Amino acid sequence: MTDIQRLSTADADFRTRLDALLAWESVSDDRVGQIVAEIIRSVRARGDAALLDYTTRFDRWTPVSPAALEIPRARLEEAWQSIHTAQREALEQASARIRAYAEHQKLASWSYREPDGTLLGQQVTPLDRAGLYVPGGKAAYPSSVLMNAIPAKVAGVGELIMVVPTPDGELNDLVLAAAHIAGVDRAFAIGGAQAVAALAYGTATIPGVDKIVGPGNIYVATAKRAVFGQVGIDMVAGPSEILVICDGATDPDWIAMDLFSQAEHDEDAQSILVSWDGDFLNQVAASIDKLLPTMERAPIISSALNRRGALILARNLDDAIAVANSIAPEHLELSIEDPESIVGRIRHAGAVFMGRYTAEALGDYCAGPNHVLPTSRTARFSSPLGVYDFQKRSSLIQASRAGSAELARIASVLARGEGLTAHARSAEYRGEDV
Amino acid sequence: MTDIQRLSTADADFRTRLDALLAWESVSDDRVGQIVAEIIRSVRARGDAALLDYTTRFDRWTPVSPAALEIPRARLEEAWQSIHTAQREALEQASARIRAYAEHQKLASWSYREPDGTLLGQQVTPLDRAGLYVPGGKAAYPSSVLMNAIPAKVAGVGELIMVVPTPDGELNDLVLAAAHIAGVDRAFAIGGAQAVAALAYGTATIPGVDKIVGPGNIYVATAKRAVFGQVGIDMVAGPSEILVICDGATDPDWIAMDLFSQAEHDEDAQSILVSWDGDFLNQVAASIDKLLPTMERAPIISSALNRRGALILARNLDDAIAVANSIAPEHLELSIEDPESIVGRIRHAGAVFMGRYTAEALGDYCAGPNHVLPTSRTARFSSPLGVYDFQKRSSLIQASRAGSAELARIASVLARGEGLTAHARSAEYRGEDV
Repeated sequence: MTDIQRLSTADADFRTRLDALLAWESVSDDRVGQIVAEIIRSVRARGDAALLDYTTRFDRWTPVSPAALEIPRARLEEAWQSIHTAQREALEQASARIRAYAEHQKLASWSYREPDGTLLGQQVTPLDRAGLYVPGGKAAYPSSVLMNAIPAKVAGVGELIMVVPTPDGELNDLVLAAAHIAGVDRAFAIGGAQAVAALAYGTATIPGVDKIVGPGNIYVATAKRAVFGQVGIDMVAGPSEILVICDGATDPDWIAMDLFSQAEHDEDAQSILVSWDGDFLNQVAASIDKLLPTMERAPIISSALNRRGALILARNLDDAIAVANSIAPEHLELSIEDPESIVGRIRHAGAVFMGRYTAEALGDYCAGPNHVLPTSRTARFSSPLGVYDFQKRSSLIQASRAGSAELARIASVLARGEGLTAHARSAEYRGEDV
Repeated sequence: MTDIQRLSTADADFRTRLDALLAWESVSDDRVGQIVAEIIRSVRARGDAALLDYTTRFDRWTPVSPAALEIPRARLEEAWQSIHTAQREALEQASARIRAYAEHQKLASWSYREPDGTLLGQQVTPLDRAGLYVPGGKAAYPSSVLMNAIPAKVAGVGELIMVVPTPDGELNDLVLAAAHIAGVDRAFAIGGAQAVAALAYGTATIPGVDKIVGPGNIYVATAKRAVFGQVGIDMVAGPSEILVICDGATDPDWIAMDLFSQAEHDEDAQSILVSWDGDFLNQVAASIDKLLPTMERAPIISSALNRRGALILARNLDDAIAVANSIAPEHLELSIEDPESIVGRIRHAGAVFMGRYTAEALGDYCAGPNHVLPTSRTARFSSPLGVYDFQKRSSLIQASRAGSAELARIASVLARGEGLTAHARSAEYRGEDV
C-alpha cells in the first residue's frame, strides 16, 4: 500500500502541511563550492591542459591531445545512421514539432516614429555563440538535446557548442544522433565544472560562448552559478513536479501513471493530485497500489510519492485552481471536461496540459513546447526555455533635431534635480542648437 | 591636461590594452557575503523585529512600530505637491514617454491549432507582486524609480512595493514624487540587505514579492544574488559605460560632454570614443581639457577618464563597428551622418543612440526606452529592463483525441529509449484509447 499523503483544503493545518511538502531549497554546499572554484581557476589559468587532467581524473580516459576532445561532425552523423529506424523517425518527428512551435516564439525588431521625426524602437539579435551542457552516463537524455538546441538554432545563434562527458570514453549514440538532427555545430567530450569553465572563458580548443544552458549535477549547477555574469545561464532547476487537477472522470489508471511519470525521475520529484471527488482520490490510490509493482523504477516512484507526493481533496474546481496558483507547478494537468474555459484563470505554471488526452509525457518529448520549465515555484516569475532565451534586445533612439530640443528640456530639469550636471549640459547642447 | 589613454586599432598591442581597460569583475567579498547571510537569516527568523533593529543600527532612526515603516500613499502625494512645478512637469512628461514606449514591449498570449484539432500556445501573465529597491542618500535618483516602476505597472503587476532606506529618517521628496506618478502601490522606509530579505520572504508588515528589481550598494547586490531562486531578480549592474563612434563632424564639445556624462557617475565608469579621424580625437581631447575645470564633479570625471577612458583611432567605420561589437557597450552613441544605414550591423549594445542630436542623457531620463541596461559586456546575452521582465509565459498543450495517438507513438519510442517506462505507459494509455 502506498503511503502517499492525503490532505484536504478544509483541514485547519492544510497550508502548513502543503508548505512542508513543497519546501525545497537548492543545496548550496560549501565543499562543492570550493572544489568548483578551484576547477574554474585552473581552467582559466591552464586552459586545455587542465581539461585533459580533469578528464583523466573524473571521466577515466586520457585524450591523446586537446584536439581529441572534439567529437567530429562525422561521428554525430554516424550515430544518426546507427540507431534504430523507429528512433530516427521519432527524433525527426519530435524535432520538426519542437521547431515549428519554436518558430512562433521568435521575437522581432520593432520601431515607431513620433510626429517630430524622432525614432524609438528595439532591435532584436541572436547570441553569437551558445553552449549546451548535456549530462553523461545514465541521465543522458536525447530529448534534452532537442529541447535545448532547437530553440537556439531557431533564434539564429551563430554557433552552438555541445559538451558531454564521456565516462570511460563511452559515447551515447542516441545523444549524438539527437545533436545531429538538432543542428549542433561542434561537440566536445568534456563534462563537469571544467566544461562549464571552458565554455565560459574559452580555451585554445574550446570556444568561449555567451550563454550556457542545459541540466547537470550539483558541480555543473554550482559552476553555472559561479560563471553567471561572465556568460548568461538558464535557470538552475530543482526536482521535477506535476500537479494534476482532475474532475474525477478520467481513468484513474491514467492519472496514477501520470503521477508515476514525474516520480520516476528521482526520489525528490513531486507528484500531486487535486480533486473535489473524494471517491476518485480513493480510486487513484487503488490504481497506484495496483500499478506500482509493475513499474521498472518502482522503488524510486514509491519513495518519491511517499516523501513528496499528495492526494488533495478540494472543495470544488475554484478551490483546486487556487491550490494550483499557490503551488505554481512546473507541470499542470487539467484533466477535466472543458479546460479551455478555465485556463485563463491559471496564473502560474510552467506548462499546462489541457484535457484527458494530454498526458504530461507528450510534452516531455514531442508536442512542441519546451520541456525545460521553471520548477520549485519559480513559475511565479519565470518562463519555459524558448527562442527568446537565445535572443537579446538593444534599445534604439534617434532624436530628430526638433525632438531633441523638447527631450533636452525635460532631461535637463531632471538631471539637475539629481545633481548630474554633465548629463544636463550634454542634453542642453543639443537643445540650444535648434 | 587629461591623461586619457590613446589607442589605435592598428597597434600590435591594441587588443591587450583594450582588454585591460574593459576588465571588470564584480567584487565578491567574503566578509560582505557573511554579513548579508546573517541579515537574511535574522529577517527570516525574526521578521519585523529584525527590520526595526537593523533600521536603528544602519539608518540611525527607530520606528515606533513595524507599521511606522510604511510611507503612506498620502505622503507620496504630498511630496508630489511639494516639488517645483518644472520638476513635476518634467516627471509627468518623462513618465508619459516611458509608458508609451513600454506599451510596445508588452508580450501577448498566442496559440494555434493543428489540422487534427491539437492546440499549442503560450499564455502570458503578469507577476502577482514585484519589489522595487531604491537607494537612499545621495544616490537617490527619481529617474530610476520611473524606469523600474513603469514597466512593472504596464505589465499589469498586481502590486508594486517600493523600499527605500531613509538614513536619519530623511525622506527624499523627488523620489517619493516619482513613486507617486509611477504608480507605486505601497512604500516602506527600509533599505540594505534587510529590505531585500523582507521582500524575498515577507514579514508580518512587508509583503513577500515574486521579483526584486532596482540598483543598490554591494550589500543590496549580494543580498539579491543570495535570494535569487526564492524570487526573481534583475541583473546585478556593473559600472556605467558609454562608447561613442563619431565620424568627426559632431561638435567636439558635445562629444566631450557625452563622455563626461558617464564619467560623472563614479570613478569606475567607462567612457570611450572611437573615430577614424585622428584630428577629431585631438579636438575632443582639447575640449576635455577646456571643459573639465568647469564641471561640478570634475575630480570624479577626471579619475574615471584617466583610469578607464580611452580615445581610439580606428581605420574606418567598419573597424569602429567591429570595436563596438567586441565591447558590447551598455550605451552606444552613433554620432555619424547616417546611423540608420549601419545600426543593423550592431550586434551587441544595451541601447543605441543614433545621430548627433541623440545625447545619451536623453535616454537616461525621458526618451522612452529604459535606462536599466546590461553592463560589463553582458549585452552579448541580455537585454534592457522592460515590460517583459514583469511577465512570464506558460506553455499550453491540448492534444485532441486523434492528435494524442500520434504524439503518444513518438513519445513512447523516445521515452523507452531513455529508460523512462512510466512516461511511455502514460503516453500509450492515451494512444490505445483511440
